[in-house]
Amino acid sequence: MNDRAMVYRRKYNIPSEWGTAVNVQAMVYGNTGDNSGSGVAFTRDPATGEKVFYGEFLINAQGEDVVAGVRTPEPVAQLNNHLPEAFTELDNIRKTLEKHFKDVQDFEFTIQDGKVFMLQTRNGKRTGLAAVRFAIEMEKEKLIDWKTAIRRVPADQLDQVLAPIFDRKAVKDAKCIAKGLPAGPGAASGKMYMNADRAVEAAAKGEKVLLVRNETSPEDLRGMIAAEGILTAKGGVSSHAALVARQMGKVCVCGAAALQIDYTDRTMTVDGNTYNEGDFISINGTAGEVYPGALPTAASEVVQVLVEKSLAPKESKTYQMFEKLMTWCSKVTRLQVRTNADTPEQTANAVAFGASGIGLCRTEHMFFEGDRIDAMREMILAENKDDRKAALAKLLPYQREDFVGIFKELKGLPATIRFLDPPLHEFLPHDHAQQNDLAEKMGISVDKIAHRVKELHEFNPMLGFRGCRLGLVFPEISEMQARAVFEAAAQVQKSGTKVKPEIMIPLVGFKRELDLQVELVHRVAKEVMAEKKMKLNYLVGTMIEVPRGALTADEIAHTAEFFSFGTNDLTQTCLGMSRDDSGSFLPPYQELEIVKKNPFASIDQTGVGQLMKIAVEKGQTTRPDIKLGICGEHGGDPDSVKFCHRIGLTYVSCSPFRVPVARLAAAQAALEQESKVVKSNGGLARGGFSKKSVKRGSLKRA
Amino acid sequence: MNDRAMVYRRKYNIPSEWGTAVNVQAMVYGNTGDNSGSGVAFTRDPATGEKVFYGEFLINAQGEDVVAGVRTPEPVAQLNNHLPEAFTELDNIRKTLEKHFKDVQDFEFTIQDGKVFMLQTRNGKRTGLAAVRFAIEMEKEKLIDWKTAIRRVPADQLDQVLAPIFDRKAVKDAKCIAKGLPAGPGAASGKMYMNADRAVEAAAKGEKVLLVRNETSPEDLRGMIAAEGILTAKGGVSSHAALVARQMGKVCVCGAAALQIDYTDRTMTVDGNTYNEGDFISINGTAGEVYPGALPTAASEVVQVLVEKSLAPKESKTYQMFEKLMTWCSKVTRLQVRTNADTPEQTANAVAFGASGIGLCRTEHMFFEGDRIDAMREMILAENKDDRKAALAKLLPYQREDFVGIFKELKGLPATIRFLDPPLHEFLPHDHAQQNDLAEKMGISVDKIAHRVKELHEFNPMLGFRGCRLGLVFPEISEMQARAVFEAAAQVQKSGTKVKPEIMIPLVGFKRELDLQVELVHRVAKEVMAEKKMKLNYLVGTMIEVPRGALTADEIAHTAEFFSFGTNDLTQTCLGMSRDDSGSFLPPYQELEIVKKNPFASIDQTGVGQLMKIAVEKGQTTRPDIKLGICGEHGGDPDSVKFCHRIGLTYVSCSPFRVPVARLAAAQAALEQESKVVKSNGGLARGGFSKKSVKRGSLKRA
Repeated sequence: MNDRAMVYRRKYNIPSEWGTAVNVQAMVYGNTGDNSGSGVAFTRDPATGEKVFYGEFLINAQGEDVVAGVRTPEPVAQLNNHLPEAFTELDNIRKTLEKHFKDVQDFEFTIQDGKVFMLQTRNGKRTGLAAVRFAIEMEKEKLIDWKTAIRRVPADQLDQVLAPIFDRKAVKDAKCIAKGLPAGPGAASGKMYMNADRAVEAAAKGEKVLLVRNETSPEDLRGMIAAEGILTAKGGVSSHAALVARQMGKVCVCGAAALQIDYTDRTMTVDGNTYNEGDFISINGTAGEVYPGALPTAASEVVQVLVEKSLAPKESKTYQMFEKLMTWCSKVTRLQVRTNADTPEQTANAVAFGASGIGLCRTEHMFFEGDRIDAMREMILAENKDDRKAALAKLLPYQREDFVGIFKELKGLPATIRFLDPPLHEFLPHDHAQQNDLAEKMGISVDKIAHRVKELHEFNPMLGFRGCRLGLVFPEISEMQARAVFEAAAQVQKSGTKVKPEIMIPLVGFKRELDLQVELVHRVAKEVMAEKKMKLNYLVGTMIEVPRGALTADEIAHTAEFFSFGTNDLTQTCLGMSRDDSGSFLPPYQELEIVKKNPFASIDQTGVGQLMKIAVEKGQTTRPDIKLGICGEHGGDPDSVKFCHRIGLTYVSCSPFRVPVARLAAAQAALEQESKVVKSNGGLARGGFSKKSVKRGSLKRA
Repeated sequence: MNDRAMVYRRKYNIPSEWGTAVNVQAMVYGNTGDNSGSGVAFTRDPATGEKVFYGEFLINAQGEDVVAGVRTPEPVAQLNNHLPEAFTELDNIRKTLEKHFKDVQDFEFTIQDGKVFMLQTRNGKRTGLAAVRFAIEMEKEKLIDWKTAIRRVPADQLDQVLAPIFDRKAVKDAKCIAKGLPAGPGAASGKMYMNADRAVEAAAKGEKVLLVRNETSPEDLRGMIAAEGILTAKGGVSSHAALVARQMGKVCVCGAAALQIDYTDRTMTVDGNTYNEGDFISINGTAGEVYPGALPTAASEVVQVLVEKSLAPKESKTYQMFEKLMTWCSKVTRLQVRTNADTPEQTANAVAFGASGIGLCRTEHMFFEGDRIDAMREMILAENKDDRKAALAKLLPYQREDFVGIFKELKGLPATIRFLDPPLHEFLPHDHAQQNDLAEKMGISVDKIAHRVKELHEFNPMLGFRGCRLGLVFPEISEMQARAVFEAAAQVQKSGTKVKPEIMIPLVGFKRELDLQVELVHRVAKEVMAEKKMKLNYLVGTMIEVPRGALTADEIAHTAEFFSFGTNDLTQTCLGMSRDDSGSFLPPYQELEIVKKNPFASIDQTGVGQLMKIAVEKGQTTRPDIKLGICGEHGGDPDSVKFCHRIGLTYVSCSPFRVPVARLAAAQAALEQESKVVKSNGGLARGGFSKKSVKRGSLKRA
């Protein structure tokens, strides 16, 4: 073997069986004159997916020269001008390779005195868009079948097809000033604002806005809604900013540590350069990059068709391919994909993307909009039950209205509605100026507000007075929420649309917690049904998000009609690891190989997964047909989706823009299981399993 | 049945089989003249345990009158002056009752025209002291055997025998101004101070001091050491204040919510009355009461004998009884009782109380004394590894010295030493004034300190950058700690005292976390052994305190030579419940009967216990002889101790002053199991089981 072949072999990890098919043993030279050359090529365009011969070459050069970048190589099509015979041969080889490998190849070649030598070939890396196009077109060309086409698209990459993009040339000319975590894929430009109010104000004036913060909190929600994208200096891929951004399909770069953000001066400093509030910046949430100035962007064609409805399906080849892929997925999927959505708009988007319902509607997000936060704060500051009830009565119509909107968009699909979950202090302002404003607005002393904030302060809010604990200590909150759900359901049902509310009680660890809340829900349901003189169908279930809930799932399933795994909190409690604080040790943990993946991005199957399996088994012991879902952010992670399939869940739920990714992963999981079942049956079985038997089988193997 | 008999029957829940033995059917009247009367009596004194006829009566009265308190009853001994025949008969009945019931009886009687009628009898309630005396003396009188005597003392009440007490009369005359949680039993008086430094200063001047805070943190440790007792306005029975207080045997009242503490004015206001720093107050940690002024106190005789060594054993009847009880316990106990101790003094106390080693030595507590905190802060503020190492080098001699002292006191008993556990921000000052002081002391800018404090701030420190995460990211910390342990071990071993260090890595959830730390410990051990030219025996194990650790115990046991359940944190994570924040919902939870007991006081056997059982079983699968202990505060709770016995643990560990309680509970657990084994063998078996077979048996039944 010559040195170069060795280099290639090492570099590309060429398997030994390649010895016969590809000439890596011979000594070949591409630098013997103008009849010689070397190149690197793809059988199709790995960026766009187009079926064209793609690559580059150098005449009178070794392969190293092509890669080294000392001389500028020419596009492979130009080879036809230099060495037309070699070009024709390569073009034939290109077709032979695809026929043989049934996939796009990335290969290296050398031409020595006009004779073509293949140095190596391997499956080519590709963008998400290209992966989809390869799969669809190769199926059409009958190179692969539709099931293989499904397997060919890395589920994770599918969201590249959905994300807005920057103009490529503009990016090339721009200077990246900081890198962060690619938390919400896509590209966004806008004037930067460091405060939600000012961002909202600017957006109202028609400005394109980016919200720039050290980190975000629920108070920033309006600002995030108003912004094109979110940029934070702190926090990880599962920080509040990232979570909300993904759910809303917003572009987001998190934890760009190089940025120094000064709220007082309203400046962002990086590398000695200072940018002022109102300056344009651009962020690439797919790559985690920050640029000064405004780089031009556009929504993906799929989003233009499905969400913006600004493009006709027949006008978009990308959309058509996407649609075909999704249709194939539906043919094999067992695991349903729902969405996490809190507004009619998010619901509509998710349904457009093929969601089969809402898996998590976080009711607390509804309390931040407009005047609602005032009533919410009034409720929290109330000194007795009557005052609390009066404030809740103000919230009821808002909440009901939200549910009406959501139920309408769902058109009969189920909606899992989670009752109030976060600790109450998250709704109160924490700085003095805002507390002053609130005091003035409410006509009470600022001391009283400060006192209540202090009183509600918690050392570990994640493990504090939240979830069902709120509804148990203040049952009037749950009552209001139940009433809002049922009144909305009655209203929509009366108008002729089916409604399937599934009320979900959060943070249950003890059966009796659920019993008490369910009792209350049934009572309110009865009241509303009597008032409205109609029957409503609904379920009541619980989140399994603390280990005790999983461990006592057999007890809890006596009351719960469904379980939904809150894998965010279950990960935090199972691992004893705060999502928001893990940034200080998770990166070294990954370096030390203690964790392979971020457990907040992909389910820790050994630990958290074990609790999930315990809960599934125990829950099914008590209630064999219990509905099982997952509503953590993991619902949009392909590996996690596949795990959920294997342990026999009914559905996963993820943010609207992740629905296609989850649908693809769910289809791939079903195919993986199918091939396992075929294997374990000596290749004779042909998928004639009932869904139930497949599910049972998966449980045993998992 | 007459009305009164009905009342009694209901009030005292008289069983129906009593019909024949006691006359509750007849109509009897104690108000028919001076030959009649009614009374309530005990066969022995239920307060002191003395064998005297104890009770009170009223001539010419119904039973209701005795209880109602309208007329003042006379002591029962005076009955001899009024109705000598009736008195003699009652005194005989008293003896008959004890002979029949083999226990002290609390009975009610009526004398109608000279004739004695027994209305009811039941086992009498008693103080801890009386319970011990009853048990010891009844065994001596051969009314009961020694095993029954062990069963007769409620383990929980034993610490009443150990706790200092207020003079009873003084309490009666004083006015209780606030109630809190009885967090550290006993009685303490002193001048109140609201700041650790001033408390230390005052104590140094010879003042008796009570530390009064909203809540305490490790920074207050010196103040707590200096104080007679600790009073907090916030926090529960497992708050920092309560935990440390119990470990140090300090009196403590926690969460006395009525107190308004003003650090600026240095006042405590309650019910409109203001008390100033320096004023005397008294707290009763057994009852959770706060009094103004100084009520006189004294140490219990047992403590005077064993700890203060100011009283000779032969001079204390109480001590002799205590000692006899403990000796009996040792005869039957399988579960060992170790102690949580961080200083030689605590170690000595625990050993005096019969601890069989240290189950938890929290090394971080050692960093708060004197100058050490400076070096610790220097380490935390260091900007690179070299500076960090330099600061750690200053801490090494202190840490080594502590271990030397502890090993000496242990005289060959094992010591489980936990490596640094709390998040680093706990060691830095949080208010501006203290930060200024520190900046001046260290010659650095206060901004730098403030920045580091901000940088280290965590949303949920309980789930943050702590435990082994510190030692993995900063291995130099673990290295220093390992070196201190082994150098101290070498020094003490050279002096002729055996040393058994057991190094414990905290917060392990992943096997590789432990692997990396254990590798480091072995390396340092080898270095020290080579330097000192001697062999040292030691173990390395881990805490099981996050659910993932329990769930992957089979993996972890490949590396861990022992497990110690950190049930405080395991409860917090398993239940998703912050110990320090649960005060807002645990009281209503107890009212709603969601939890029966405070899960931070007594192990939640269904949830947390399930994780413990999983870990025991999985751990033993990998390493059948794995040493198993528990070092949470639950180690001093009798029910939890019994649970630990049943699931087959090797030892429990608790604060020094709880050691006798745990020893008693461990003996009772062994007796409970013995009687179950006897029962399940048809009463024929006679305890001829090896310890191993009993342990296995218990595991299966548990």
